Amino acid sequence: MATVEDFTSQYGLVRKIDAFGYLDYLKNNPDAPRKHGKVVLVTADTPLKASRGEGKTTTTIALIDALRKRGIDATAVLRQPSMGITAAGSKGGASGGGKASLTHPELIDWGLCGEMGAIEAAQNLLVSFAEKAIDDGKLDTVLVPRVSEVPSRSLRSVAVDYGKGDVPEKMVLTPTCELMQIVVLSRSMDEIGERVSAMIAGTLDGKPVTFGEFIDLWRITNILADAVKPALTETSKGTPVYVHGGPFANVSIGIPTLVSVELACALHDVVVVEAGYGADAGAQKWLDIASREYGAQWPSAALVVTRATTWRDDPARQWRYPFHVNRLEKLGIPTFPLVNLWDGEDDQIPALRETAAELGFREPIIGNLFRDGGDGLTGQIDDFVTALEAVGVPSNPESRKGEDIVDTVRWIAANAYGVPAERVVFKPGFEESLNAARELVAGVGRDLNDFAVCAVKSPATMTDDDAAAAEERTVTLKKVEVRAGSGIAQVNLTKSLTTPMPKIV
Amino acid sequence: MATVEDFTSQYGLVRKIDAFGYLDYLKNNPDAPRKHGKVVLVTADTPLKASRGEGKTTTTIALIDALRKRGIDATAVLRQPSMGITAAGSKGGASGGGKASLTHPELIDWGLCGEMGAIEAAQNLLVSFAEKAIDDGKLDTVLVPRVSEVPSRSLRSVAVDYGKGDVPEKMVLTPTCELMQIVVLSRSMDEIGERVSAMIAGTLDGKPVTFGEFIDLWRITNILADAVKPALTETSKGTPVYVHGGPFANVSIGIPTLVSVELACALHDVVVVEAGYGADAGAQKWLDIASREYGAQWPSAALVVTRATTWRDDPARQWRYPFHVNRLEKLGIPTFPLVNLWDGEDDQIPALRETAAELGFREPIIGNLFRDGGDGLTGQIDDFVTALEAVGVPSNPESRKGEDIVDTVRWIAANAYGVPAERVVFKPGFEESLNAARELVAGVGRDLNDFAVCAVKSPATMTDDDAAAAEERTVTLKKVEVRAGSGIAQVNLTKSLTTPMPKIV
Repeated sequence: MATVEDFTSQYGLVRKIDAFGYLDYLKNNPDAPRKHGKVVLVTADTPLKASRGEGKTTTTIALIDALRKRGIDATAVLRQPSMGITAAGSKGGASGGGKASLTHPELIDWGLCGEMGAIEAAQNLLVSFAEKAIDDGKLDTVLVPRVSEVPSRSLRSVAVDYGKGDVPEKMVLTPTCELMQIVVLSRSMDEIGERVSAMIAGTLDGKPVTFGEFIDLWRITNILADAVKPALTETSKGTPVYVHGGPFANVSIGIPTLVSVELACALHDVVVVEAGYGADAGAQKWLDIASREYGAQWPSAALVVTRATTWRDDPARQWRYPFHVNRLEKLGIPTFPLVNLWDGEDDQIPALRETAAELGFREPIIGNLFRDGGDGLTGQIDDFVTALEAVGVPSNPESRKGEDIVDTVRWIAANAYGVPAERVVFKPGFEESLNAARELVAGVGRDLNDFAVCAVKSPATMTDDDAAAAEERTVTLKKVEVRAGSGIAQVNLTKSLTTPMPKIV
Repeated sequence: MATVEDFTSQYGLVRKIDAFGYLDYLKNNPDAPRKHGKVVLVTADTPLKASRGEGKTTTTIALIDALRKRGIDATAVLRQPSMGITAAGSKGGASGGGKASLTHPELIDWGLCGEMGAIEAAQNLLVSFAEKAIDDGKLDTVLVPRVSEVPSRSLRSVAVDYGKGDVPEKMVLTPTCELMQIVVLSRSMDEIGERVSAMIAGTLDGKPVTFGEFIDLWRITNILADAVKPALTETSKGTPVYVHGGPFANVSIGIPTLVSVELACALHDVVVVEAGYGADAGAQKWLDIASREYGAQWPSAALVVTRATTWRDDPARQWRYPFHVNRLEKLGIPTFPLVNLWDGEDDQIPALRETAAELGFREPIIGNLFRDGGDGLTGQIDDFVTALEAVGVPSNPESRKGEDIVDTVRWIAANAYGVPAERVVFKPGFEESLNAARELVAGVGRDLNDFAVCAVKSPATMTDDDAAAAEERTVTLKKVEVRAGSGIAQVNLTKSLTTPMPKIV
């Protein structure tokens, strides 16, 4: 009888697990010992500014440390931070902080075991193969963007073969690319191969051509051999933490890999999955893409993190936090408000509890988790544990596959952003973009209505103007871009700008 | 008392060694047990076509397996192949083959532990910081190229900020960049930091500005934390092999990292260093850059690999192989010809031995090393072992620091390419390029004559026309580019084109 140890290797200070192999082993050995962990989402309020976190990772780490102290076998699955963004100084890292820390945050923040670099190389190699296909007369346009892990504003718009072909291109951040989505959503290397095959490389005489028609797939899968293995590290208190898959739920799916969560569920009883930025981005994508369309487990409970200031200091946007909490409750997910205090805010606790009571919330969990870590939570999670123990592993909701894709966007706007269908409006050019997308996927024998919708928007807004009165809020649809390999239709929406390749600050 | 084990960690199927830490430990503990291994260069004939190897890696692996079978503690230090080039199918990998193989060639060929990806991210981050410096008014031009591990011809010439700034840039292959040179030449993370600091980021009002003037160095060194550790793997026979540092001795230095060789010398008696492409590229750079200017050990012996066909099938270029062998002998390095046979060539052995004798060579070593591995060498290396045992660890030759840099180029042409000073000619524009380089480094208080010369040329030629008669061969100097961090003056020479960003084939 094998154990997960047989699928685990040391990689410096972390361990990596052949999740594909282990999950396959469990499938073929139904009597092998395994757990059936429940998924808990840690998500957040919509941040007031795009790059500021409310403390989701800090909360996640404090929570699993607190659960473990109570004897519950808990773990967390985190996304690998974008090293480029951290290194550029645009963000402080994404590995918790203070007493809610990982043992080796520097590893997680600074490139882990080269996973992102491998995905970057593989996606860029696809572009090189597409260029070669142009030379060979198999393509005349390339539709796959190059990627860079390091942000650089001037790469948003580039011309390659400058001075001769002057071919306009754009470059996007590695974590947001289609190949990252494929790695996040696939359950085997064969599935990765099939999905890469199905990616639309470009067009020839206006007709789409997939990579499967001209590349050696093994060249891509060889590059990804180690990148598909989740990393295992631990908190400073010794609680195991898995790290795998790319961030940025604003412009991509931004969730951990499905296999890392499934691996964790086979090994632990409670699996905390970080889903950010806000609930409108990360949680929406976990629920409506991962669970609904790709078979990921529906959460058994959720925590929605906010800061005292985010919740209350912008009256026009105060509606967002209760909206998120209530939306998740309405989906049948026991949802706990969590206020992550900063230094000097302890005296606000009574007022925060009062506000939560007025809003009809469950009793909020409040603590300075940077300062106190899991100890700040231990006395406050009885209700959470009770709620979690009460539910069975939930079944997944119905897929929307086959529904008209614009109806799906309207349905997301109504449910996740609070904007009814009649106030979802089309920007000039949207319909052309939609029709072009429909035609492109029809050209490879597929139907756009079978694609999952991934909203592409600013992390700081859900509607065209979150500060507008409720009955005036709108959602503008701007553009559709298809990713036939990951099966995702990227729909740009709201009037805010997205930044798939930010300036460094 | 510590051992190297204390500085070694498992990384999947290979191990990585904190060479900086271990060498520092040995320096501070002069009584700690250590070896004083001798360096043997395995270099080659100039290949007839740029991308075809003569079998240097195969020879290196066969040689150390054969030495180990005789009870000699031998190892090899290989360069990490360019994954991009391998993955693109432009080259078959660089990890030996047949019976002269590594246990896990796929790891070496396909990205190892992310070293190249980390160097790529760090060099690209430098460019992003330079862009930010432009926004901050600290620079008005950027002189550092972006890099890509994956080849793409159309990246040779790009415009960034296209449609607005239209800033022309070029991208080069990651292994050829200045940061790779810095990693190859540095002996501590502090030295890497100092060298990155000294890199010229660009200019402001025509005056050069170094990165040290505006960046947080720790952001770069954090990215490189694991990339600076040599990897340890082994041959299929169990002989240890270190892998570290980038290839491409045609357009860069293309040698393994100095610390990987020094680490190997502290742990083994014979350290075989692969120095290719031909002796005019890899060996010239080991001798004249690494040994002469950066304190690397002068080789105690050399093998010059050729194939029967390369040696004899192009009469006009037949002069090159004996030229290489004789040049190394003249430098006092016992030099052994080695002919790597391919299938069906065994019957040529007597004729090859005859030719070697006519040329006054040492008795050549001849074998089909792909087919036979180290067993093909065991009976033929007595003279080699005797010669190696006879010499003490050689002292290093004098530096050329301070000599006029054009004289140094002429000296290289005379010694390494067989073209006397009077036939080293300047292409129009060369002198302007040279003067601009002199002025640029003077602007940061340095003298170009203190830089080491790195010849940038085709791997397949040493002169403007290798097929010309000896007395008509010339070397044209085209351009000088300075790399103030690595301390290298890149001098483009000969009329052949170089391909710092090849097309994929």
